[in-house]
Amino acid sequence: MNLQHVIQSQQFSVPNLMELFGRTRQMETIVRRGGTRDYDDKIMASLFYKPSTRTRFSFESAMYRLGGKVLSTESAKSFSSAIEGEQLEDTIRIIANYCDVIVLRHNEEGGAQRAAAVSPVPIINAGDGGGGQHPTLALLDLYTIYNECKTLDGLSVAMIGALDTGRTVRSLAYLLSKFERVKLYFLAPPEMQIKQDIINHLQEHDVSFQLESDPSEIIPKVDVVYQTRIDRERLQGKEVDLSQYNINPDMLKRMKSDAIIMHPLPRSVEIDPVVDRDPRAAYFRQSQNGLFVRMALLTMLFDKE
Amino acid sequence: MNLQHVIQSQQFSVPNLMELFGRTRQMETIVRRGGTRDYDDKIMASLFYKPSTRTRFSFESAMYRLGGKVLSTESAKSFSSAIEGEQLEDTIRIIANYCDVIVLRHNEEGGAQRAAAVSPVPIINAGDGGGGQHPTLALLDLYTIYNECKTLDGLSVAMIGALDTGRTVRSLAYLLSKFERVKLYFLAPPEMQIKQDIINHLQEHDVSFQLESDPSEIIPKVDVVYQTRIDRERLQGKEVDLSQYNINPDMLKRMKSDAIIMHPLPRSVEIDPVVDRDPRAAYFRQSQNGLFVRMALLTMLFDKE
Amino acid sequence: MNLQHVIQSQQFSVPNLMELFGRTRQMETIVRRGGTRDYDDKIMASLFYKPSTRTRFSFESAMYRLGGKVLSTESAKSFSSAIEGEQLEDTIRIIANYCDVIVLRHNEEGGAQRAAAVSPVPIINAGDGGGGQHPTLALLDLYTIYNECKTLDGLSVAMIGALDTGRTVRSLAYLLSKFERVKLYFLAPPEMQIKQDIINHLQEHDVSFQLESDPSEIIPKVDVVYQTRIDRERLQGKEVDLSQYNINPDMLKRMKSDAIIMHPLPRSVEIDPVVDRDPRAAYFRQSQNGLFVRMALLTMLFDKE
Repeated sequence: MNLQHVIQSQQFSVPNLMELFGRTRQMETIVRRGGTRDYDDKIMASLFYKPSTRTRFSFESAMYRLGGKVLSTESAKSFSSAIEGEQLEDTIRIIANYCDVIVLRHNEEGGAQRAAAVSPVPIINAGDGGGGQHPTLALLDLYTIYNECKTLDGLSVAMIGALDTGRTVRSLAYLLSKFERVKLYFLAPPEMQIKQDIINHLQEHDVSFQLESDPSEIIPKVDVVYQTRIDRERLQGKEVDLSQYNINPDMLKRMKSDAIIMHPLPRSVEIDPVVDRDPRAAYFRQSQNGLFVRMALLTMLFDKE
Repeated sequence: MNLQHVIQSQQFSVPNLMELFGRTRQMETIVRRGGTRDYDDKIMASLFYKPSTRTRFSFESAMYRLGGKVLSTESAKSFSSAIEGEQLEDTIRIIANYCDVIVLRHNEEGGAQRAAAVSPVPIINAGDGGGGQHPTLALLDLYTIYNECKTLDGLSVAMIGALDTGRTVRSLAYLLSKFERVKLYFLAPPEMQIKQDIINHLQEHDVSFQLESDPSEIIPKVDVVYQTRIDRERLQGKEVDLSQYNINPDMLKRMKSDAIIMHPLPRSVEIDPVVDRDPRAAYFRQSQNGLFVRMALLTMLFDKE
Repeated sequence: MNLQHVIQSQQFSVPNLMELFGRTRQMETIVRRGGTRDYDDKIMASLFYKPSTRTRFSFESAMYRLGGKVLSTESAKSFSSAIEGEQLEDTIRIIANYCDVIVLRHNEEGGAQRAAAVSPVPIINAGDGGGGQHPTLALLDLYTIYNECKTLDGLSVAMIGALDTGRTVRSLAYLLSKFERVKLYFLAPPEMQIKQDIINHLQEHDVSFQLESDPSEIIPKVDVVYQTRIDRERLQGKEVDLSQYNINPDMLKRMKSDAIIMHPLPRSVEIDPVVDRDPRAAYFRQSQNGLFVRMALLTMLFDKE
């Protein structure tokens, strides 16, 4: 696979994903053995216009485990002459002189695409704008399902939360639609249901899906519960019992014994801490997979050069 | 010694301290020879919720001199979703996936203990809250006395400054109370004297001590003068001559010829810059010891794994 | 050459500059081959009181390409006890314990000189105050002219923009005055012309120069066009056509075929993006030279130890 930039999750075909996941699995082994020095001449620049300590650390740890080095800015928006109207394109052209790959979290939708258009080194999109893409998150989510369920075909996946604004569920729905006999359940208060563009996409691709506001009958059927946060303030004045969307011991009892629970983290009240001790709680493994997937992506970008 | 986390200075017994100081001395040699690569597969995360450039650089330099790598956030409080109410415990669980040790400076007292309770990798407390612990500071202070005076038994130590709020003097008093025939002098305006909890602790451990507001008769007797800052504004409206607490050429003349002067730095007016040239001025050597002590602690955490 | 600190561009004699540029050229080769590990026991501290992501990344990348390690603070002014009145001198004495070289961007003019006066490790001035020095910028500018034009003697150089406040043009004028038969043209609205101190310097050194507000007749004569930004707001209420100072296809046509266009970047409207495609546009090569010049300076500081 000739991987030049990582801009959006949709750019990956099923064979691409399988190559990525094969490499990801190798990275688990490499990390367990203490990392490699194979890429010790490589420099990664973390160019974060908006701060995100966890995402940044995950990328930088990936680079370190590969033997490489890291240039880092936590909050370029507050710290650079970006405020003086410097163009992203010029910044990228300059910073590309100092590194071998740029991990970009930009504050505007489409920022990563603009950067890739001028950059002589690979760009990895680490989130661009509120409504934009964050492809490595979607890829680590998909890898987690693949790794835990041993397949991506024929799965039933429930997504819970504020689905209209949830970037992770939207991206995951797109990615899952590439696989066979997937069944998606969107569980949310009607005000927060998944948007029409996703519904259209699923219909075009003949993906089976169902919209529900009551999770109780769906939960026992699914292989994956993908839980996200619900912003309580958005429902002010409405009589909605949000606790029905929480994962607690009662909901655990109704889940399949081999189902898994995912969450992009950080969580708020929507997952009871007692759930952490259940082997089906996959969300901390999921966050660890971020390291392996990002290592795999970096090697795919470097090896092709 | 089986060292799992470094949370508070009191956790170290006298034999533990001696093992630490033995390693610390080895680190001086290693640094003089250009460092080691023995730990080049290790990653340290500097997770500073409150900024402290000097403390952070000291830890990160220690890790680099050992051959390791560093993930770093200068001000996680302003930069992360911490502001959205993310739990410290979840943050630690996630970041532990990306590193082999976490150096945590948290803004709340007890933060390091909470982190250690859930972390699969060692936590080093780099300060938690204003009234909390900062054990590596206390350890480097104690090592400095040990290294300069060649013993910790039988010493007379004067502590000067705002002793009621001074974290460093409080911790050092605790640590010194573990040694034989130590005599402590607390020199401060009455409004700023050492608090009752320390007095109780010293009495319980039969440590000889004395509280004084006038340093003049004490200074000629002591082996160590531990100087700290006095916040002038706290004494507004009071007629106190704070200059009597300053270290200046006049006070130098009255000190023992083999005494040492320490200060946690940064200093304000309480040490005259001309004192810097006196061989008894140990405060810059003290700050350098921070590097060696932190290197030693890191090796103790890594070697036991 | 015995290089101890890099504080101001004037400290370099012509033979010093030639040694630096010889090393700079070697660094280009080293980077093309993936860098070196010769300095992998060295630690550089980036101590930026004012943020500048591009300058910082350039220095840090230089250190990494040499095999070294980096301590970094993006904005020490907002992050450290500097705000409590800590003295720069004490900060430098302490941080020098943790590293082998300090790259300092201070907010006050003369900060780098003060740091060098007390520092046991080399200080590199990465900009001190608005009116202060930024010697590595001037050196990379001069190297770019040398590298592109194959000589520094006998060149005609036009500088355009707000020349009174422009640090880069002032420094470059000083450096160019060291070479033979150089001719300088200062092209700016009269309100923004180069200041008298530079004029005096050029007269004392018998350097040929000319002040003009209309660039049209000068541009066809010069080997180098050094373009800088004009702050439009400074000319409010005045009837000045600033577009005459912009570099656009029309001005390109009037330039010599082997002239080069330089700019310290970031640019605003003063260089039309279509100019980027012209081979005479040297500003991105210029920014890349920053990496090589900084690598060369670091090796000169390290090798002499």
